[in-house]
Parts: sequence; structure tokens; C-alpha cells
Amino acid sequence: MNRRAPLGVAVVGAGRMGADHVRRIDRVIDGARVAAVVDVDAERAGAVAAGVDGCAVHTDPAAAMAAADVDAVIVASPGPAHEAALLTAFEHDLPVLCEKPLTPDAASALRVMEAEQALGHRRVQVGFMRRYDAEYARLRALLSSGRLGRPLMLHNRHRNVASPPFFTSSMLISDSVAHEVDATRWLLGHEITAVTVLRPTPSSGAPEGLRDPQFVVLETDGGALSDVEVFVNCGFGYQVQAEAVCERGTARIGDGHALVTQTAGHWGGAIAQDWTERFDQAYDAELRAWVEATRRGEVTGPGTWDGYAAAAVCEAGVRALENGGRAEVDLVEKPALYR
Amino acid sequence: MNRRAPLGVAVVGAGRMGADHVRRIDRVIDGARVAAVVDVDAERAGAVAAGVDGCAVHTDPAAAMAAADVDAVIVASPGPAHEAALLTAFEHDLPVLCEKPLTPDAASALRVMEAEQALGHRRVQVGFMRRYDAEYARLRALLSSGRLGRPLMLHNRHRNVASPPFFTSSMLISDSVAHEVDATRWLLGHEITAVTVLRPTPSSGAPEGLRDPQFVVLETDGGALSDVEVFVNCGFGYQVQAEAVCERGTARIGDGHALVTQTAGHWGGAIAQDWTERFDQAYDAELRAWVEATRRGEVTGPGTWDGYAAAAVCEAGVRALENGGRAEVDLVEKPALYR
Amino acid sequence: MNRRAPLGVAVVGAGRMGADHVRRIDRVIDGARVAAVVDVDAERAGAVAAGVDGCAVHTDPAAAMAAADVDAVIVASPGPAHEAALLTAFEHDLPVLCEKPLTPDAASALRVMEAEQALGHRRVQVGFMRRYDAEYARLRALLSSGRLGRPLMLHNRHRNVASPPFFTSSMLISDSVAHEVDATRWLLGHEITAVTVLRPTPSSGAPEGLRDPQFVVLETDGGALSDVEVFVNCGFGYQVQAEAVCERGTARIGDGHALVTQTAGHWGGAIAQDWTERFDQAYDAELRAWVEATRRGEVTGPGTWDGYAAAAVCEAGVRALENGGRAEVDLVEKPALYR
Amino acid sequence: MNRRAPLGVAVVGAGRMGADHVRRIDRVIDGARVAAVVDVDAERAGAVAAGVDGCAVHTDPAAAMAAADVDAVIVASPGPAHEAALLTAFEHDLPVLCEKPLTPDAASALRVMEAEQALGHRRVQVGFMRRYDAEYARLRALLSSGRLGRPLMLHNRHRNVASPPFFTSSMLISDSVAHEVDATRWLLGHEITAVTVLRPTPSSGAPEGLRDPQFVVLETDGGALSDVEVFVNCGFGYQVQAEAVCERGTARIGDGHALVTQTAGHWGGAIAQDWTERFDQAYDAELRAWVEATRRGEVTGPGTWDGYAAAAVCEAGVRALENGGRAEVDLVEKPALYR
Repeated sequence: MNRRAPLGVAVVGAGRMGADHVRRIDRVIDGARVAAVVDVDAERAGAVAAGVDGCAVHTDPAAAMAAADVDAVIVASPGPAHEAALLTAFEHDLPVLCEKPLTPDAASALRVMEAEQALGHRRVQVGFMRRYDAEYARLRALLSSGRLGRPLMLHNRHRNVASPPFFTSSMLISDSVAHEVDATRWLLGHEITAVTVLRPTPSSGAPEGLRDPQFVVLETDGGALSDVEVFVNCGFGYQVQAEAVCERGTARIGDGHALVTQTAGHWGGAIAQDWTERFDQAYDAELRAWVEATRRGEVTGPGTWDGYAAAAVCEAGVRALENGGRAEVDLVEKPALYR
Repeated sequence: MNRRAPLGVAVVGAGRMGADHVRRIDRVIDGARVAAVVDVDAERAGAVAAGVDGCAVHTDPAAAMAAADVDAVIVASPGPAHEAALLTAFEHDLPVLCEKPLTPDAASALRVMEAEQALGHRRVQVGFMRRYDAEYARLRALLSSGRLGRPLMLHNRHRNVASPPFFTSSMLISDSVAHEVDATRWLLGHEITAVTVLRPTPSSGAPEGLRDPQFVVLETDGGALSDVEVFVNCGFGYQVQAEAVCERGTARIGDGHALVTQTAGHWGGAIAQDWTERFDQAYDAELRAWVEATRRGEVTGPGTWDGYAAAAVCEAGVRALENGGRAEVDLVEKPALYR
Repeated sequence: MNRRAPLGVAVVGAGRMGADHVRRIDRVIDGARVAAVVDVDAERAGAVAAGVDGCAVHTDPAAAMAAADVDAVIVASPGPAHEAALLTAFEHDLPVLCEKPLTPDAASALRVMEAEQALGHRRVQVGFMRRYDAEYARLRALLSSGRLGRPLMLHNRHRNVASPPFFTSSMLISDSVAHEVDATRWLLGHEITAVTVLRPTPSSGAPEGLRDPQFVVLETDGGALSDVEVFVNCGFGYQVQAEAVCERGTARIGDGHALVTQTAGHWGGAIAQDWTERFDQAYDAELRAWVEATRRGEVTGPGTWDGYAAAAVCEAGVRALENGGRAEVDLVEKPALYR
Repeated sequence: MNRRAPLGVAVVGAGRMGADHVRRIDRVIDGARVAAVVDVDAERAGAVAAGVDGCAVHTDPAAAMAAADVDAVIVASPGPAHEAALLTAFEHDLPVLCEKPLTPDAASALRVMEAEQALGHRRVQVGFMRRYDAEYARLRALLSSGRLGRPLMLHNRHRNVASPPFFTSSMLISDSVAHEVDATRWLLGHEITAVTVLRPTPSSGAPEGLRDPQFVVLETDGGALSDVEVFVNCGFGYQVQAEAVCERGTARIGDGHALVTQTAGHWGGAIAQDWTERFDQAYDAELRAWVEATRRGEVTGPGTWDGYAAAAVCEAGVRALENGGRAEVDLVEKPALYR
């Protein structure tokens, strides 16, 4: 690795996620520098770029991507803006780390996938950062080893303290369960073929009108099931757990027992309150892996096909939520570029 | 309690379960004695009665129940024989502890319920012994306290090392999930209104043709869901777990962490290999509670209505298993005697 | 077992412990009945005996032991009264379950031991009920199996919410650590040869003047160490834990993870608040085993030698506490009767 | 932070530890570069420096430290070489991260401390990397918060799978327990005043003649005790645990329950096999913090005083080991520079 020439990265989107990527590239990850920050709000972009040595500020992604010192792009803008940013990056043949979702629906994801195929090589990594979490990685390694036999069922829990004000019932599927959709596909190596959504009476802790919690069952083309309890106003903590039930045993992650206290009649420990605490190191690892792979000219993480498959499953999930039952998933045939 | 006049109990059925009841009454439980052992196989009955002081041997339940020193009956014969034994006990107006299932189907359970109503008072306790397990009892006490708010979901695991040779796919519902059916009704205080059964590809560890594991979702008239992973050839142990997800927290039982070892790169502990290890004390407690209540002339445990409701839910579950989807449960109106 | 002739037991001492023994014999344990309750306070004895069918009330142990329907004795009076009660029982050649301590010091324990030897057969079981706790029993079985190699160290924790008002610094040794003294001897099969007591600054939660906590290290003739944290005003719960460190692994008991909750940023469970919750079943098992062995004419539990050894070790411990260092234990040679 | 001028670091010592520091500086930590690798074995230095862009190779630390592009030094050579390297660094007024031990004994540590005082400002951070472990940091934050009251006792476990061939009985103190010495001082904020070492019969798994395990009790000037089980041939894993017992509760770290499996009658998880697995992220964090502080011209980690105190305690510990008892620690008065 040539330390004298770090990877110049343009970060598109200066919200919480974008600002966090800027901080990691600038202060944590070796081998990359922030060359530009882009946001429709110039002031917000400027604030995030402040203090970053030699960092340009733009309101137009295309202008940033045209700069000579930009070697790669991170897309952290809102989902509906992703398609345009990705297509622009393809014009400049720049590698992209695109935050999830790839795009908000399967149709637009298909268009991105077609554009990347026209380009002739893979350029996109989608920000499914759980694949970089040490616990998920150990679970996958165990499943792949075959030591426990074939996976039969995956039980997932996805709990948040409280949902943001703009959250809708369908976002429990498309925004939250989207992570389990990718995790299921990645852990099991199967595509998802159908989604069933069951709707218990909402918690009185959920905002009026929000269908929270939901219980989602994913069927896969490998014959395994993956069920997900999603509960975004559980009140007590942020919690992501998975238990794989295999032919010869089970394996579970997400208990997080680092510090155990005993006080006043109670033993136990703290539960993380948000994802930054639970997945901070996964984000570091994701970005480090992306920088290293990009400098070698490779894409090693989840790609456009994974972004498309997640979008298609979530679309089916939202249909299943609406009718309180089951919906099938219809994927296009997997293009050669992604096999 | 008058120690000079212990409760004289006739045990009908001298199989594994009946023999175990005889042992408990004879050696563990205070205030009762085994007055008679009944089995169609006189030799088997004799073997179980041997060494029990003053214990008669019968092949006909009616003869045993007519004896002057028989004050109460335990029915531990095969399910299809329960209806006749119960009706005979009603003729003698004897209290009965009837092993689950009350009867093999909802129609016969209804007939028993009608006979008990004709008798005018409750005489039957059904052997849902999980209600006497200390962990289940603590979970129910916590849920009833309201400290965690309303229960929204119950996640259950029911795993056996291996199924007996005669086990069929529908017995995973009617014999195994039957316990979770009662536990769900008891923990939540709801009736079950529909059953969905999902069928992953069977484990290669299951006998040819057996649909194992299965994933069952119970809907209740209180709006809560209860899902059950039933896996009767999991290979690694006998395991019964439940996690209640409530509006303000969760509560989980069944981890069983009594002895933790560390050896050769591995920390952890033993998993029980069958139900006698996991539920031995629940059986003691059940029998002790039944003897005490019976001596006071009361029925305090799960009764005929509970046996009927379980039978009706399991019938719907078997239908759902056959079509791989959802089936509704149709209960008669609850008679006054059981309110 | 002949149910028509239950063992007639005289319970000497009608305090909390004695009353609890009366309840167990009367209501829980099969094969025994309470024939007499003895207390210097006749009213207290009468209150405990009330409602027990056919139970006599005495203020003099000798009178009770002379009664025709008394077959065995439980001594649950204060420690200083034990020696006289035991010698009286020997006069009537009655089997005794004697609550710990056998006697308050090694000299009196030796006198009891000599009297029992003069009797020519063992009659005494000492109430070290931890030997009947399921977790301790599993730990001992594991150590005895040799699977983990030779035990090298035993780490013990003995914590109480708060000490009773009469508790003194030396009672942390003679009353609390006495249990670990017996547990160490029983688990390791070694005699204790020296005691070191280290005294951290007392907790501000302890009563003025009480040396609480203390840290005690026991050396054994088998070369293993056993350290004990004793903390009788820990405030948060009653907790008894042990971790054996062996040549090929460790084994730990006492975590008690039965019910795990998650609420408001915290996962965990309840800690028992007193010994009745933690050891209730051990007391049941101890009494059941004693009744069964006594009816067979045997002594199977910890005996007079064990009571004497514990008294001698605790005496050395109190000396070590006083000088804040180490004291050696001097045992007489083990008499043939106890080998 | 000026990304165009990363901190130029000379790494002295190209063994396992030095090579690991080179890898971290080169590939993981932002804001620093490896300017030189130094080792008496030029070939070994060259192998470690290979592939690191612009990295010089030296056999003499003084030559490396004289280079214009060297801004700071990491000392990772064997302990006896530390004093000379540190004094040379002081001549060039270079900041140093010195692996533990600061020096092998208290007398040499005092000489280093005096030289640093002559320099007039602090330049040394000692490599007690547990202070950068997330679990230790959480434990310390909890203790410092006062939520649990004053710490009374600290129970530590330090277990290795197997000791290297050159390990001696006194190295269990000076090399292994040295970490608990610093952790105790850092967690409690006390100095250690006396050390007691108890020596159980060695494990048959330990090499002939090695006193393994040992049990060490540290007394502190704050009245708290800290006991350490050190067992460097435990066979089953690498394990570092600590439990603080405070006036109002306890807190425990080091259980490591990330992935829990259930197989063949056993639940549990893997135990780390060496320190790289357990403390990898602590080393990252330590180096990152040192680079950032050094670029700001500060020393924020454990310093020369901490290195001296550890050396003095370990010296007393080795005396205590030899006599199987207690030895007092005699510290010089703390110089103004370190207050």
C-alpha cells in the first residue's frame, strides 16, 4: 500500500451517517482521505468538511465526482437520491460504497443493476454493515463450516428503544427488517422466496397508528425459514440477536454480556441504547475493508445484486404486511456479473 | 391434614408415567397412598404395585374405583382410554388427575365436559405439569404483575433429542406443541383463535418422512402471538424455553445455567437429555398440589375446559400442518362451570 | 417402606429452623411424623405444634426422647444447647439430625465424638445441607469423576443482604464460613490444615465495628487452596457461589439464571434475598434422605467427625481473624468409627 | 490534525510484539507511519520493514532516533534493553511508547524516572494496554462513578493455555501478574502496600519445577484487597477476568459470551486461545490514543511512575513467592512530575 497516495473519497450526503463516514475516513481508517463533502445544503456540507485538511465542499455530486483528487464515492444521502448518484458515479467509473437501501424499490434497483452491467464490471458495495460485525462473521463461519449440519431455521430479534417520528408501519419492513433480509441471505446463502407478516395488537408504547411490533417469517429457496421479531418501540434497548437452528445444534449471537453487575436484588448488565454502540466496530471494519479492496481495484462486499434482492423482498414484505398474510418474492434471473 | 387417613389413590395405567406416579405417591408425596394399580396387563400392574404396602392390583378401572379405600384416581393410560376412565370416575364421583391429553380429540373432550357438567361440580385436573414448574410459575407471576406491560409475543422452543419410533408429523402438534398450547393459554390468559404451521425442509437427522422441525404460530383473542419452534430430533438435548415480549420488556426462562464448566477451549454446561431431568420437580409439585387440593375437596389445577381447548387447538394445528398454512380454531362457548 | 409406621420425630428447638423442620416433616416429607416439639418456651413449642396431628409438647428434651412414639430427634436449638441434647439422645440410642454447628467449639465436639464412640455406632448427622443442594452435588460428582483432573483451587463467595443485629466479626467465620469449611472438605475430600484471614477496610454498609467483608484462604492436606469471600452486608442479595479450578478445566455453580428479564436499558434477573429461596430444596432433600436412612438404621450424611473438623477449622479461623494473618489447624487423629 | 504530516515512528525491537506494532502503524492506525525498524538482528529488522513504504532499517536505536523523519519511538525490545533505549530517546527528547515492563526491576525504573524528571517533562507511556480494553474501561468508569460505593475487593483470574518454555515461577509474578498489578492500581486508584503469595500443589499440566498455579493477594493503601489466580498452564484457554466487590454491588468483566452454541448435550461457547484474540482491539486503541496524544504533544496513558510502581510490586511479589507468605512494598515518594 502506498501511504503517500491515500484514496481520495467524496462523501455524498452530510447527515448523521455521512458525517460519521467523514469522521472515520479522516481519523480512524488508514489509507484514505476525505477529498470532498457534498450536500444539497452547502452550510451543512461545510460544517462537516470543516477541520478536514484539503477537503472540498460541493452541492452537486457530479461536480465532486469530476474532481481530479476524487478516487471513490460514499453515498450517504437519502434513499430516493441514490439512483442518480450511482449513475453519475458509473459515468466517472468510480467505486462506490452506497448506504442501504441501494434504492427504495426493486424497479430502480434493477435500473442500477443494468447500468452497472453496461459498465462491464462491478463498482458498487452496499452498506449492509452487519456482514462486518465480528459476531455475525463468527456465526457465518460456523454455519459455513458445516459443523452443525444444514441450517433449518433462523430466529432473529430486531429491537429499538423508540422509532423516529417519521416512521411508518411499512418502514418496519423496508428499513428495519431489510437488515435481517440481507443477514438471512448472507448467513444461509439462500434467496428468499416468500414473506409472511403477522401483526399482533400494537404496543401501547408505539405511536398511534404504527403497527409495532410485527412478526415476519421469510421462506427461502433452500428450504430454511427465518423469522424476525421487529419491535421498534420496545423501550428498553437496542438489540439485534440471531439464533441459527441447524441439524446438529444451534448457535446464537447478540447477548452482549461484557459487563455484569449485581445491585439491589438484581444481576445483569446494560443494554445498548442505539446502533452506534452495538455496531460501531462493524462500521469501522466495513469502511476499512472497502478502502483496502477499492485500492486493490476490487469489490469484495455485498453488491448491487444484494441491494436489489433486499429491495424486492422488502416490497413483498410490505404487501404481506398490508394483507396480514403471505406474499411471494419474484426475482429476475441473476446476471452473470454477480454470480 | 389428617395424617392417619392418607388419600387412597387408584393409578390407572402402569406404563412409564403410571409407574412414576406410583413411586411419587408411595415415596415422595406426603398425605396419599397408592390403594390400587390398574392395567389391562395384570403382570405389568403387579410389577408396579409390588413393594407398595396394601396396594391392590386390577385389570378393570371400574373395579378399582369401586373399592372402599379408593378416594381418588390418576389416569395415566393411553389417550384413547381416557374418556371411558373419566366417565367411570364420574359415576363414582371421584376426583381425577388425568394425564394429557384429556382425550385425543375435541369431540370426545366435549363429551367429557358435558358429563362433568351433568355431575354438577368439577372433578378433573389435567396433567399440564408445566404450570407447576418453578420457572414457568415465575414467568407467569411476572406477566400477571403487569410490571412489563401487556404481553405482545411469546417465543417458544420445544426440542427433544430424538423422537420415539411411532412418532408422526401430526404428533409434533398434538403431542409436543400441546404443551405450548396450554402454556400460552395459561401465561397469557387468552384463548387461541388460529394456528399457522410453517414447514422447513426436514432435518436429515429426522426419520424418513417425518416433518421435523416445524414452526407454529398461534394467534390469540387478546391480540398476542405465540410462536413455537418444535424440533423433536434436534440431537443435542431436551430443551423447553419461553421468552415473553411485553410492552416494557422481555422475560425468558429455560436457559438452565446451573453448572458452568470450562474445558479445552470451551465454556458452557450440560443440556438435559430428557424431560425427567427438566421437569422432575414440576411433577412432584403437581402431584403434591393435587393431593392437597383433593383432600380439601377442591380442583385448583387446569381442568376439563383446558383439556378441551388444547384438543381443539391441536386439531386445528394438524389441519394447518397438512395444508402448510393457517387454520382457525372453533371453541364452544365456555360453560358456567368453568368460568 | 412401611407407610403405616412413619418415623416419630421429636424436634428440639421451636425457633425459625425448628418450626421449618416441623413443617417439612408434617407436610412435605413422606414416611415421618412429628411426635413432639420441645422448647424451653412452652408457649412457643405449643404454637409450632398446633395443628400437627398427635404431636406432644415438651420443655425438656429428655422427657420428649423418653416417649414411646419418638424414634428419632432433630436438634434445632441454639448451638450451646447441642451437646446436652446429643448426649441425652445417645442415652436413648436415638438417631439425631443436629443443625450446624455440631457444638460451638472443638473441645465440646470432641466430647460428643467420644460419647458416640462409647455408644459403639454412629447416630449423628450434622445439618450441612449444602451437601444436598443439586448444584453442589453436581459439582462434586464432576470433581469426583476426575474428568477435569485434580482440583487446585476453589473460589467461594458467601454473601448475605444484611447480618442480624447480634452478629460479630468472628461469627463471619464460625457461622458463615463454616459452610464453606464443610463444602471445601466435602468437595475436595481433603482436611484443612491452615487458615489465613485478610481484612479489607469494612464496608460502610456494615454495622459499626463489624469486620465485614473478610477474605479467608484455607489450605488443605491435599495441596489445594480454597478462598472465601464472606460479605454479610453486601446489600444486594443472598449469594453462594463456588468455582473449582482443576488441572484441565474449571467448574462453577451458583449463578442462578432461571428467569432473565430485559427492562429499561438493563438485562438480568433477580438475586435471591435469603437462604430459604436458594436452599429450600436442599433442606427438603436433606430431611428426606435423613428420614429414609434413619428408617433403614443408617447414617449416610455428614457426621460427628465432620462437625468436629468444622469446629476446629473455625476456631483456627477466628484466631487468624484476630491477628489478621494465618493460623494452623490441629485435628486429633480420625477415630476408626468415622473412617 | 495535519494528514500531510503523519507521525514518523521508529519501532525498536522486531520480535512478535514489534512486528505487530509495525503492522498496526502501517495498516490500521491513521496519522502515523513507520519511519524506521530497529533490531540487533538486521535481517529480522529488514523482514519486518519490507513492504512498508519509506521505512529505514537500523541495528542501533541511537542512529534511528537521530533521523530527521523520526518523531517518536516505540520500544518493543526485551526488557533488559529498555533502560538504554529510553535514555537515548530522552537525549533526543522523543516521546516513547515503551512495552511493559518499563524495566526489569525497581532500581532501574527509578533511574529512568530520574532521567525523565531531569528532562523536565513527561515523555513515556508504558504499554499497559488493558487500560484501553473496552471492558476494563467500562468497569473503571462504573467504579469511578461511585454508583456501587467504594470498592472493597477485586477478584482477578489470569489464565493461559500453556507457558512458553523459558517461563520461571517468578515470571508468573513479574510477567503475568504485572498486568493485574497495574489494573488494580488503575481500577482502584490505590497504591499496593503488600503482596501475599500462596502456592497450591502445582498442576500436573505444568512443566516440571514450575510453581503453577499461584494465588496472589495484593493489599492497598486504600484498604481494598485484590486477589489474583494466575494459572499459565490451565490448558483450556486464555482468560482474563475481574470482579469488583463494592459496598453496594459487584461488577464483573471477562466472560466473553459473544457466540453461544448448543451441540451434543452441551451449551456454551469458545474460549479465546491467546491474547491476540482477547486484546486485539485494546492494542489498536492503545496505539491510536498514543498517536493522537503524541501529535498533540501530550502523554495521556500510564507513565513512568506506573512502570516503576509495577516493578516495585512485582519485586515484592517474587520475594513473597519465595517464602510462600507476605512481603511489603516500599515505594519512593511520588515525584511532582507524576502527580
